[in-house]
Amino acid sequence: QSNVEIYGLVGVYAGSIKRSDMTPRVTQLGHGGLTTSYFGFRGREDLGGGLKAIFQIENFFQPDTGAAGRNATDPSFASRSAWVGIQGGFGQLTLGRHTTPFYLAMQAVNPFVASTVFSPVVLQSYIAPFGGTIIGDTVWNNAIQYSIPTMNGFSATAIYGLGEVAGSNGVGNLGLTARYAQGPFLATASAQRVRVGATAPSTGQYAYLGGVSYDFSFAKLFGSVQKTERTVTDLESSTYQLGASIPVSQAGKVLASWSQTKADVTPVRETTRNTAAIGYDYTLSKRTDLYAVYLRDKVTGNSAGNSYAVGIRHQF
Amino acid sequence: QSNVEIYGLVGVYAGSIKRSDMTPRVTQLGHGGLTTSYFGFRGREDLGGGLKAIFQIENFFQPDTGAAGRNATDPSFASRSAWVGIQGGFGQLTLGRHTTPFYLAMQAVNPFVASTVFSPVVLQSYIAPFGGTIIGDTVWNNAIQYSIPTMNGFSATAIYGLGEVAGSNGVGNLGLTARYAQGPFLATASAQRVRVGATAPSTGQYAYLGGVSYDFSFAKLFGSVQKTERTVTDLESSTYQLGASIPVSQAGKVLASWSQTKADVTPVRETTRNTAAIGYDYTLSKRTDLYAVYLRDKVTGNSAGNSYAVGIRHQF
Amino acid sequence: QSNVEIYGLVGVYAGSIKRSDMTPRVTQLGHGGLTTSYFGFRGREDLGGGLKAIFQIENFFQPDTGAAGRNATDPSFASRSAWVGIQGGFGQLTLGRHTTPFYLAMQAVNPFVASTVFSPVVLQSYIAPFGGTIIGDTVWNNAIQYSIPTMNGFSATAIYGLGEVAGSNGVGNLGLTARYAQGPFLATASAQRVRVGATAPSTGQYAYLGGVSYDFSFAKLFGSVQKTERTVTDLESSTYQLGASIPVSQAGKVLASWSQTKADVTPVRETTRNTAAIGYDYTLSKRTDLYAVYLRDKVTGNSAGNSYAVGIRHQF
Repeated sequence: QSNVEIYGLVGVYAGSIKRSDMTPRVTQLGHGGLTTSYFGFRGREDLGGGLKAIFQIENFFQPDTGAAGRNATDPSFASRSAWVGIQGGFGQLTLGRHTTPFYLAMQAVNPFVASTVFSPVVLQSYIAPFGGTIIGDTVWNNAIQYSIPTMNGFSATAIYGLGEVAGSNGVGNLGLTARYAQGPFLATASAQRVRVGATAPSTGQYAYLGGVSYDFSFAKLFGSVQKTERTVTDLESSTYQLGASIPVSQAGKVLASWSQTKADVTPVRETTRNTAAIGYDYTLSKRTDLYAVYLRDKVTGNSAGNSYAVGIRHQF
Repeated sequence: QSNVEIYGLVGVYAGSIKRSDMTPRVTQLGHGGLTTSYFGFRGREDLGGGLKAIFQIENFFQPDTGAAGRNATDPSFASRSAWVGIQGGFGQLTLGRHTTPFYLAMQAVNPFVASTVFSPVVLQSYIAPFGGTIIGDTVWNNAIQYSIPTMNGFSATAIYGLGEVAGSNGVGNLGLTARYAQGPFLATASAQRVRVGATAPSTGQYAYLGGVSYDFSFAKLFGSVQKTERTVTDLESSTYQLGASIPVSQAGKVLASWSQTKADVTPVRETTRNTAAIGYDYTLSKRTDLYAVYLRDKVTGNSAGNSYAVGIRHQF
Repeated sequence: QSNVEIYGLVGVYAGSIKRSDMTPRVTQLGHGGLTTSYFGFRGREDLGGGLKAIFQIENFFQPDTGAAGRNATDPSFASRSAWVGIQGGFGQLTLGRHTTPFYLAMQAVNPFVASTVFSPVVLQSYIAPFGGTIIGDTVWNNAIQYSIPTMNGFSATAIYGLGEVAGSNGVGNLGLTARYAQGPFLATASAQRVRVGATAPSTGQYAYLGGVSYDFSFAKLFGSVQKTERTVTDLESSTYQLGASIPVSQAGKVLASWSQTKADVTPVRETTRNTAAIGYDYTLSKRTDLYAVYLRDKVTGNSAGNSYAVGIRHQF
């Protein structure tokens, strides 16, 4: 028991949701919200010589319905991560199911972090009804990940996800992220190549991300650029995001982010999607906060939609 | 780790089961029995000012097969409950998946409490092969629940379960329970309106329950009345239940309950079901007990069936 | 929380796998390996008089994909075991889902223990693509198990798994294992009759196992014999296994095992399968080890296949 730590976050929001291409709107109690609810177990063992064995098992879950995972296609035991590995002076090597470094880089340079409900850039990147540009999930299976030790604020991570296709070892995913953080400044660049689950005729997708954040104390500003390109079919997308996190009291801060994606879709034409969110996050304690968010969404050929919600998050 | 408490109950029974309308009988090792097995995590955080953040995540499970939930349609992560909320002088407000106050009221006024295998009134209310009169589950999704603080033995809970039907906000479930407990006396009244999952042409169901219990020391007596009525189709049911819990030694008590339901069924006719159970529950320790139960069941048009079982429960 | 212990093992291997009848080979990150990953909760309560209430809930899981269980047909909550019972001077009686005594006996007399990926005799007994001779799983549902207390190194376990077929109480599984362990010597004999899940026209299968191990310090040697016979269809199999575990340094040992199965298959003919594995297991600490395994497999009518893998196991 002393070897295992239990931790996680349970979050629920109540809101009225309407995307640009959605009609009519739906009133719902949703799971997640600012952070997708999860439940985790982790542990470490000292191996001597500065080495540690480490493991982590995390499952997303839906407190509104009791369902496992984020959706019906998620695995039921450890949808968020499941890995084991070794940590030491050489860095960290882990094997199993991992959150992609690309998604982690995206989180670092937008004020709504990992929110799959309220972060404009995350919606436009990963959520299919919002035209999610990135092929493949935010989590990769069968992956080997290596991170160098952080040196003078610089860190880097490489991940390789095996496709496990008999006779076709090349059908694998590859990701690389570099990050520099010093004082109030952070910059990150990430690239990934996805081949697992690519839909023919495309054999995969390349995605690139660059972003920065700077904390001016009175406000923390964020900016990021993303590009994707599918092999063979040549479908491309460009995403630009700007954001801010502004403390307005000891416990409250305003969050704002706007993201625009221009994307090729089939049959071939270009669409433009603008999604913007503004929210207020109020900290009740070290582990609990309340928030309200307004989100506006507009895609080519549809009238604008808007959503509003209030929510609670509790870490444990 | 210190933030999360692990708890639950594992129960198994071995028995020979035959409902009135069932032939032949089946000998089985069953999960649950007097209490359905479950596994839970809960925690609380002091927010100051008498407020607490609270959460609870509980999963039913089947120790006979290792399956999650009570049945194949249950979610696999938190079928029993999953919620987060705030507790304080104002009462308690929680959001997520909740056990209905109606089912909790029913448990308080019958000696077999929540047993979905041996409690006659629970069988006749919630278990389909026993003609379960109540539409909807004992657990509601997407629910907001508020309880007032207990005052002079009086408490009350309201719950609203969103239907999340786009453009139809009114398709929701509603429940209200009041309860008064003072010394040996307890009385409770509950009403609920179920619209989520109603089968056309009916648009839902109203259900009402009233019940009392009184502990005379030599015996605790129970009595309850329930009525249901479906909207549009007008299918009705009435249920009457009487029960007793009689201590016969320091560790042992006899449990007895009889329940009768008269219900309209389609094609329209009325059926009467009588189900009675008598059991003996022997406490081995604070957390472990053994029991034996005999159950007799008779419904209009079928010969009587009877079931007997022995079981074990262990709380942790 | 103090009532529940959390424990388990997370293991992953990276390897290139090719069975005798498989083409082409597949490179994969696999879950399990030397031990199938699992996650468990267990507890005990002192009942006085030398009696204890005990329970155990264990789930297999797949750290490469986050899936629950060993495969898609496993239950999602407690695929490895789920039982509750009583322990005392009389022995141990438990009810629920259990690992079969037959599989446990097999583990005691081969150096690759329970590995469903690298143990030749386990592959030939339980893994369908390797011609697994044993009908039924390594885990039985609805089971009642009784073990006598160990006396002078002798122990024995009986298990009965109910089939729960209405009107056919005889469709159940039965298993018996005896074991003698004294100093460096261990001998075990096991027999089981499987009727649950038998495929017509066969009404079941009888399986027998005898095995020994002896620890000569410079090496521990293993040997086992298995026979199976299906009722009605009379399909038979014979399996012979020899193995060794040889310490080569303070932390490292070489493992080797060869298993041969001659089996009747339908349409009726006899096949011979030879599977051999050699591995090196290196202990990093009390709870973590690394290993490398080479496995060669040859079945009648196919060219030989060979697999190699490196892996990590971490207990918690």
